[in-house]
Amino acid sequence: MGAAAAADAPVVAQGINGSLTLAVAGAGAAIGIGMIGGKAVEAVGRNPGAFGNILTLGIIGMALAEAVAIYALIIAFGGR
Amino acid sequence: MGAAAAADAPVVAQGINGSLTLAVAGAGAAIGIGMIGGKAVEAVGRNPGAFGNILTLGIIGMALAEAVAIYALIIAFGGR
Amino acid sequence: MGAAAAADAPVVAQGINGSLTLAVAGAGAAIGIGMIGGKAVEAVGRNPGAFGNILTLGIIGMALAEAVAIYALIIAFGGR
Amino acid sequence: MGAAAAADAPVVAQGINGSLTLAVAGAGAAIGIGMIGGKAVEAVGRNPGAFGNILTLGIIGMALAEAVAIYALIIAFGGR
Amino acid sequence: MGAAAAADAPVVAQGINGSLTLAVAGAGAAIGIGMIGGKAVEAVGRNPGAFGNILTLGIIGMALAEAVAIYALIIAFGGR
Repeated sequence: MGAAAAADAPVVAQGINGSLTLAVAGAGAAIGIGMIGGKAVEAVGRNPGAFGNILTLGIIGMALAEAVAIYALIIAFGGR
Repeated sequence: MGAAAAADAPVVAQGINGSLTLAVAGAGAAIGIGMIGGKAVEAVGRNPGAFGNILTLGIIGMALAEAVAIYALIIAFGGR
Repeated sequence: MGAAAAADAPVVAQGINGSLTLAVAGAGAAIGIGMIGGKAVEAVGRNPGAFGNILTLGIIGMALAEAVAIYALIIAFGGR
Repeated sequence: MGAAAAADAPVVAQGINGSLTLAVAGAGAAIGIGMIGGKAVEAVGRNPGAFGNILTLGIIGMALAEAVAIYALIIAFGGR
Repeated sequence: MGAAAAADAPVVAQGINGSLTLAVAGAGAAIGIGMIGGKAVEAVGRNPGAFGNILTLGIIGMALAEAVAIYALIIAFGGR
């Protein structure tokens, strides 16, 4: 919530806490990374000789998806 | 929230901000574009000779999905 | 919200408007129609001779999924 | 909402009604049944001779998924 | 909600109860386990001779996904 929440405003949904930003963005990033990893494993299983290329491309894609989670982490560490 | 929010009404969920319109519609648009791109890459991998047709069809589909995000952007820039 | 909302009750989440019914049911209906259409296109690509049967079956399925969105539209036009 | 809701408590989100239990659990159950049915149709299309086994296994899976929706229906009929 | 909820704060969304942590994390964990199980069944159907390896790898993956649900269970049993 952060200290910016005015003390005299009614606080709702107080049983729930956490950073919505990191929750939703992190879920999406993790699902995206999982898709890349799953398809990469499948691709290696179908053509083991392409392991190097698959690893390169998979790591590029996973890094881009991970970056989304890091953006959300930065926002969550800041004042949201 | 916009200036239309009455000042005397209790404001809830004040720890969360942002445009729900762009958040949800943009998420859907991005997932749809990702599906088109992923299947297009898979199709080129299976039949590299059809690259031109796949590119044409993929760009048509991605433009239509991108348009949904642009609709949401317009609504988010306006008064929501 | 509708005129049935009591004027003296605290109104929350007032920055968000729209029909939840049509939003969620329409999203699901559209995703379902998209699944049918995508698989139909894939099936025609694999066996172009079955175009007639695929079209018949696909239109039946898409009509049933579209009906869900129309149910939600009726509820959204009424008092929700 | 139910009669158990204290009359003097501020009621929020009053524009939305319905049973969250049945909504979310029913959506998941329906998606799960749809996955089983879709894969079963695909399996019969690939190997029509296995229709009996596919039907048996599909009905077992669909009954288990349907049971989740029935659990939610019982909770929704009760006091939620 | 828990006893930690201040008695004088307005309680909202009181028609809905339960642990959001376990609900969302458990849903994700169950979907992930279902993906592993479904793909494992598919893999055994394609290559029955690899049953031992598929079982080993599938149980490792399912245990890791199950662990996420157990984390959420611990948080849900505690003060949330």
